[in-house]
Amino acid sequence: MYLKKPLSVLLLLVSYGMANAQTKNNAKVESLLQKMTLEEKVGQMAQITLDVIGAGNDRYTSTEPFSLDQQAMEKALIRYKLGSVLNTSNNRARTPQVWYEIISKIQQTAMKGTKNGIPVLYGIDAIHGETYTAGATMFPQQIGQAATFNRSLVRKGAEITAYETRASSIPWAFSPLLDLGADPRFPRQWESFGEDPYLVSQMGVQAVKGLEGENNDVANPYHVASSIKHFLGYQVPVSGKDRTPAFISDQALREYHLPSFRAAIQAGAKTIMINSGIINGVPVHANYNLLTKLLKEELGFKGLAVTDWGDIENLYKRDHVAKDNKDAVRIAINAGIDMSMVAYNYEPFCDDLIALVKEGKVKESRIDDAVRRILLVKYDLDLFNKPTTNPKDYPKFGSKEFELASYQAAAESITLLKNTDQTLPLNKSMKILVTGPNANSMRTLNGAWTYSWQGEKVEEFAAKYNTIVKALELKAGKQNVTYVPGVSYKMDGRYFEEYADQLDAAIAAAKEADVVVLCLGENSYTETPGNLSDLYLSDLQTELAQKLAATGKKIILVLNEGRPRIISKFEQKMSAVVQSYLPGNFGGDAIADVLLGTVNPSGKLPYTYPQFPNALFTYYHKPSESRSTTEGVYNYDADYNPQYVFGFGLSYTTFKYSPVKLSTATLKKGETLTVSADVTNTGKVAGKESVLLFTSDLVATLVSPDVKRLRGFEKIDLKAGETKTVTFKITADDLGFINPEGQKITEDGDFTIQIADQKINFTYNQ
Amino acid sequence: MYLKKPLSVLLLLVSYGMANAQTKNNAKVESLLQKMTLEEKVGQMAQITLDVIGAGNDRYTSTEPFSLDQQAMEKALIRYKLGSVLNTSNNRARTPQVWYEIISKIQQTAMKGTKNGIPVLYGIDAIHGETYTAGATMFPQQIGQAATFNRSLVRKGAEITAYETRASSIPWAFSPLLDLGADPRFPRQWESFGEDPYLVSQMGVQAVKGLEGENNDVANPYHVASSIKHFLGYQVPVSGKDRTPAFISDQALREYHLPSFRAAIQAGAKTIMINSGIINGVPVHANYNLLTKLLKEELGFKGLAVTDWGDIENLYKRDHVAKDNKDAVRIAINAGIDMSMVAYNYEPFCDDLIALVKEGKVKESRIDDAVRRILLVKYDLDLFNKPTTNPKDYPKFGSKEFELASYQAAAESITLLKNTDQTLPLNKSMKILVTGPNANSMRTLNGAWTYSWQGEKVEEFAAKYNTIVKALELKAGKQNVTYVPGVSYKMDGRYFEEYADQLDAAIAAAKEADVVVLCLGENSYTETPGNLSDLYLSDLQTELAQKLAATGKKIILVLNEGRPRIISKFEQKMSAVVQSYLPGNFGGDAIADVLLGTVNPSGKLPYTYPQFPNALFTYYHKPSESRSTTEGVYNYDADYNPQYVFGFGLSYTTFKYSPVKLSTATLKKGETLTVSADVTNTGKVAGKESVLLFTSDLVATLVSPDVKRLRGFEKIDLKAGETKTVTFKITADDLGFINPEGQKITEDGDFTIQIADQKINFTYNQ
Repeated sequence: MYLKKPLSVLLLLVSYGMANAQTKNNAKVESLLQKMTLEEKVGQMAQITLDVIGAGNDRYTSTEPFSLDQQAMEKALIRYKLGSVLNTSNNRARTPQVWYEIISKIQQTAMKGTKNGIPVLYGIDAIHGETYTAGATMFPQQIGQAATFNRSLVRKGAEITAYETRASSIPWAFSPLLDLGADPRFPRQWESFGEDPYLVSQMGVQAVKGLEGENNDVANPYHVASSIKHFLGYQVPVSGKDRTPAFISDQALREYHLPSFRAAIQAGAKTIMINSGIINGVPVHANYNLLTKLLKEELGFKGLAVTDWGDIENLYKRDHVAKDNKDAVRIAINAGIDMSMVAYNYEPFCDDLIALVKEGKVKESRIDDAVRRILLVKYDLDLFNKPTTNPKDYPKFGSKEFELASYQAAAESITLLKNTDQTLPLNKSMKILVTGPNANSMRTLNGAWTYSWQGEKVEEFAAKYNTIVKALELKAGKQNVTYVPGVSYKMDGRYFEEYADQLDAAIAAAKEADVVVLCLGENSYTETPGNLSDLYLSDLQTELAQKLAATGKKIILVLNEGRPRIISKFEQKMSAVVQSYLPGNFGGDAIADVLLGTVNPSGKLPYTYPQFPNALFTYYHKPSESRSTTEGVYNYDADYNPQYVFGFGLSYTTFKYSPVKLSTATLKKGETLTVSADVTNTGKVAGKESVLLFTSDLVATLVSPDVKRLRGFEKIDLKAGETKTVTFKITADDLGFINPEGQKITEDGDFTIQIADQKINFTYNQ
Repeated sequence: MYLKKPLSVLLLLVSYGMANAQTKNNAKVESLLQKMTLEEKVGQMAQITLDVIGAGNDRYTSTEPFSLDQQAMEKALIRYKLGSVLNTSNNRARTPQVWYEIISKIQQTAMKGTKNGIPVLYGIDAIHGETYTAGATMFPQQIGQAATFNRSLVRKGAEITAYETRASSIPWAFSPLLDLGADPRFPRQWESFGEDPYLVSQMGVQAVKGLEGENNDVANPYHVASSIKHFLGYQVPVSGKDRTPAFISDQALREYHLPSFRAAIQAGAKTIMINSGIINGVPVHANYNLLTKLLKEELGFKGLAVTDWGDIENLYKRDHVAKDNKDAVRIAINAGIDMSMVAYNYEPFCDDLIALVKEGKVKESRIDDAVRRILLVKYDLDLFNKPTTNPKDYPKFGSKEFELASYQAAAESITLLKNTDQTLPLNKSMKILVTGPNANSMRTLNGAWTYSWQGEKVEEFAAKYNTIVKALELKAGKQNVTYVPGVSYKMDGRYFEEYADQLDAAIAAAKEADVVVLCLGENSYTETPGNLSDLYLSDLQTELAQKLAATGKKIILVLNEGRPRIISKFEQKMSAVVQSYLPGNFGGDAIADVLLGTVNPSGKLPYTYPQFPNALFTYYHKPSESRSTTEGVYNYDADYNPQYVFGFGLSYTTFKYSPVKLSTATLKKGETLTVSADVTNTGKVAGKESVLLFTSDLVATLVSPDVKRLRGFEKIDLKAGETKTVTFKITADDLGFINPEGQKITEDGDFTIQIADQKINFTYNQ
C-alpha cells in the first residue's frame, strides 16, 4: 500500500481554507445563476474549437499565421454566449506568447461583451505535457509513466504540465486518462496507466493531485483543473477499435473500470470527460444510469461532465439513437451531460436546447445543475479575477529542471524484457549499427498528442532533442555508431504506412558491426486513425529483423511503440529486448543510457505482452483461461501464452526476496495485516526495484475469482549488497470483490499473498 | 419468412395423440416417483461415460475389444442406481451390433437389478450424423448445412441421424448446437449454424424436428430425443477460446443468443445442455437466474437440463466458486441442473447430493423436479417398454438413399467466393495439379466428432469414401490429375502441427499443370484442443500458396476448414476461391462436381469472413463500426474490412433482382407486410439462389440499431432465363429489438428492406 503521510496542521489549515473558498464560490455561482437568462445558461454549456472563431475560409481551418475572426468570435461569445473553447487552430502547437494573446482577446470579448462578464473556460488536450505549446516539456506517455511504478515521478510530471499549461494561459487540461488499458489492440492503450485497476487508480490520483494540487486549489496559478476520462469503460470494445461497442457487465464495470474514477473523484477531480463509445448497446452519452445515477448520485461527483468531441451529434449521425440533432441534445442533456464539446456547429446545439427547455422536454432545473457545475469550475479557477495567466510569470517553462524530470521518468520507464548472456549493457568501444524506422525519429519517441493530434509535426518542434541515433552518437562516440534506416515510415501517410529504406544496406552494415541496435515499433497515432487490424508488428519490420538475425550478429531490439505489437516471429533470435514505450523528448537519451549501462533499467510492464494476435489476456484473468490438464479422455487444458507477463522487467543487477512475513495468520474485520519482505540487491551494481504485492482469493461465491490481483507496490533503490524491508498494509477491503449484484464484499476464507517468487497463505475471518 | 404448411387434420390428430401420451407419461412419472428412495432419485441425476463400466485398468480407458466390467457396472447401475450413460469406450466408433449388445446388457442390468426397473437413458454426441457408429452417414457439419440456406436439407439430415442413432440402440443425441457462431476464433464455430440469430433459429428448429419428429413423438423408434446446446451464450468468450469468460449484456443475450433456444423450446426439444463457460464472471452451471428463472420459468422449458462434461466438478476444480465437490453439487443443483454429466467420479456426486438433501441444503422438491424431468424423457422415449432398438430393424442404415442426402447437402453447401475470368468450372481435359494438406484427407473433410471426439480415426473408418484427389481422379480422369501434398498435417500431433511434404515438388508440378487445385484449411479439432492463437492460415500453407502463385499458373483455392482462417496474404493471387467448410464423407465428390461444373454452386456464407486477425465483426454490427469520414480535423472514420461478407456466394449463372414490391408503405400493428421480388436467372445454366431479406431500423431508442438484420430467406431453383417471384411476410415482431430493460419492442418509425442489391423503405406506425 502507498503509505499516506500524516496530515500536518498546515495541511489541515489549507484544507479548511479550501473548503471555505468552495462555500464562497458556491454562493457566487448561485448569485450569478439568478441573473442569467436561459440563452446565457445554454451558451455556457457549449464548447467550440478554436478554428471556429479563427480567420479563414471555413470553420474547419484557419489562415496562418493565426488570427481571431472578430465577427465569428462575437457571434460565438457574445451573441451565443458560449462558455468554453478548446484546443488549437490548424491542429498545431503555439508559443506561450501566442496563447496568451489569443486567450486574452477571447476573454476580453466574452467578459466585456456580455452582461454578466463570464470568462471563457479554455480547455486543452495536455497529454504527457502541454501538447499544444511549443517548447513545453514532453514526458513519457502515461503507459511509460506507469512502467516506472514510481508515484512521485507521475506526480512531478503532472505538476510540471499544470505549470506549463498555465504558462500558456490555459487553466483546464483534458488529462489524466483513467481508462483501463486492458486491450493491446486499442489505439490509446499508451495513453493509459496500463491494464491493472489498482495501478491506474494509484497513478491517476497522483496525476490529479499533480495537476490540481494536493487540495485541488486550482485558483493557484500553477495548477489547472483536470479532466479525468473517459467515463466509463472506454478501452474495451469487442473489436478493439476506437469508439465501437463494448460489452461490460455491471460486475466488471465496478470491479475493473470504476475504481480509478472513484479514486480520482475522491481526490477532488474538477471535471470529467465521457466515453465516446457504446456499452451494452447504449451510447454512454445517452446513458442516464451511468451519467446521473452512478456518476453524480452514487459517486457524488460535483464537477463538470463534458462530452468528447462531437458526441452529442454522434447520437444521431453515428449511433442512430436520436432522429435529429434536437433529439440527440435532449437525450444527452437529460442523461446528465453538462457541457457539449460541440466542436463546430454550436448554433443548432444552443437553439435546440433552448427550444427543448421551452417545450418542457428538458427541465430548466437540469440546465441549472449543468451551469452551476460549469460556473463553479470557473470560480474555483479564479477566472473571473484572472481570466489569463501571463507567460512572463512562468520562468521555469521548458527549463532544465523540468527537462530533467522528464528524463528521469523516461529512464525509470524503460523495461528490459530479455538480456541473453548479459548482452547489455554494451561496451562503449563496440561498433554499433543503429537501424529501424524508430531509430532516428523524435515523432515516434513522443507518439501522438505532441504538438498536434496525431504527432505528425514533432520533427518541426523537437529538433533540439536527441533521437536514439543521436543520443548514441553523443554518448558512445560518433565514430562507433553507424545508422542505416532499413525501414522508414511514410511521414505523410497513415501511421502504418512504411517502406524499405536501404534495407539491403542495413543488412550489409550489420555484418560490419559488433552489435545491432534495432529500433522497431510504431509511428505515432491515436483514436480511430490508430485502429489496427493486425497486432503483429508490420511485415516489413519483421523482415528487417529476420534478415538481420540471419547475419548472426547480436541484436538488441529496442521497442518504441504505443501498444505491444507482436514480435513472436523473431523474438527468440534477439539477444536483448528493451521496451521504451513512448518515452518523450528525452527518450533517446534515456534509451542510450540504458544501453550503455549509465542507467540500470527498472521499468516493469504495466500490461501483458501478447505472443499471438488472437491470444489476448490480462494477468488478472479467470482460472479457466490458464487451467492445466484434466484427467480422462476429454482433456480441457487451456492455452495461456503471453510473450511477457504483467510486472515483468529485468535489471543489470539481481534481487533476492526473503520469505514473506505476516503480522497475523488470521485477519479479522477492521484489522490490518502487515506484510513485509526483505529485498536484497545480490548483484554488483546499484538498482531500483518495484516490489509488487498480489493477492489471490482461493474461493469466491458465484464470481470466479481472478487468478491474482495487484494490491500494492513500492519502488526501492538498493546499492549492491544492500537489503531493505518493504512493508505493505492489507485490510479486508483490499481482499474484496464485486458480487453479481454490484456490491463489494469480502468473504471469509483463505487467500494467498505473492511478492515476487514468494507466496504465503492467510485466512480472513470476520 | 418460411411459409408453414397448413396443418392437416391428420397432423391435428397426431398432435392430440401426442398431448394425450404426454399426460399419460406425466402420470406414470408421478406414480414411479412416489416409489423411489432418495438414493434412487439421486442416481437418476448422474450420468457416467461408458469407460467407467468397461473392463480395463482404470476408469479412463477400456481394454480392446471392449467388454463391460460386470462388477463396475453393477456398482454403478445397481448400487448407485445411475440414470444415464454417455458416449463410447476408448473414444472410438462401434458398429450398430456392438452398440446393441453393450446397451442391451446395460439395460438388463439396470432394469433387472433395481427395484423399480428404470432403464438407463443412453446419450451420445451424434454430430453431423451418428458420430460414434461405424458405417453411419456423415453429413456436412452444421456450418455447411447453414450455408445451404435450405431448411429441408437440414431436416432430412437430422431425420437420418435420428434413424441411425436408433439403429445403434441409442435414443438420445446431444444435438443440435444452437449457439451463435459469431466468433471465427472459436474452435466450435463450425458446429454452429453460423453467426445470424435468425438463421440459427430456423435451422435449429428443423434439426430438432428432424431428430424428434414433427410432433416430438420420440417413442417412435426412428426418432430420438434432441439436446439443444449449449444454453446460453457459449461461443462468444472475450479471448475466443473455449470455456473461457464471456461478457454478454442482458440486452445482447436476449437479442442474439436467446432466439434459437426459445424457438427450439417452442418446437418441443426434450433436453438441453448447459454452457460450460462463464458469463459476466459467473459460471453458467452456477447461475440460478439463467437456469431456473430464464430457462425453466420464463421460457417454460419442461425438459431435462444436463451439464456438459464434468461441469459440476469444474465449479471448484476450475472456477473456484465452490470450496469442494459437495459445495459444487449444492450450487449447481440449486441453480437448476437436472442431470450431471459427471463422466468419471460419480460416487462423490451421489454421496454428496444425498447428504445435502439430508442436511436441508438441497430441497427434496428440487430433486423431485429434476427426476420428473429425467423420467419423463425416459417414458416419452418408451424406454420402459423398448429399452433398446435392434439394428436389424434399420435396413436403411448407411444406405445409398442416406448417402445421397449427405451428398446433396454437401453440394448445396459449397460456396464460391471468387471466380476471376470464369476460371471455374474447369475444362475436364485440363491437366490439374491437386495439392495442399486437405487434398487427400477424409479426416479434414469431416472434421471432429467423426468416429471419435477429435476426428483422428477418420481414415480408419472412412476409407471407402472419396477425398478431393480421389473424386477428381474419378471424375476428370486419373490421367489428368497429379497429386503432390506440398504440406501435410502431422496426424499424431496437435491439429495445427504440419510439415512441408514435397513442397518443392508441388511447385515443380504446378509448372507442368494447366491449373492448380490448392486445398488448404485445417486439420480436425473441437473444444479446447482446437483453440487457436492466430487466425491467419498457417505460415507453411501461406508459403505454399505464395510459391504456387509465383509460378503464374491459375490457382483454385479450395478451403476445407472449420472456421474462416485468414487468407488475405495471398487471396488476391488466387483465380478462384471455393469454401467447402467441413462437407462430410461426400465432400470430395461434391467439391469435384463443383470444380468440374456438374454442380452449380449455391452456398452462401453463414458468417463474415475476416481479412485480418484483429478485425473481427459480424454483419449485424453497430453503425459506429462502419461509419464513414466526418468533417473537420478530428476525423473519426471506422475501418470495416471483411474479406467476404455474410450471405456472399457466387454462382456459375447470374441472377437479377427486380425492385422490391411492398403490399403497403405503412405497416400497422397486427398487420402483415408482404414483400416480394422477382428473381431472374440471366445466365446460361440452371442455378439455385438463396434469396435473403434484411431489414434495418433507421432510429431506435437508446440501443444503437444494427446496420441490418436477416429476417427471411428462401432458396429457389431457376432454369436459365426463368423468373420466379419470392414472397416474404413481415410483421411488427420481425422489426422489434430488445431494449435495455430486456423487453422486446417495436417502435414506430422508418425501416429499410434490402433484398440483394434492391432497397426500399417503409414506415411502421402502430
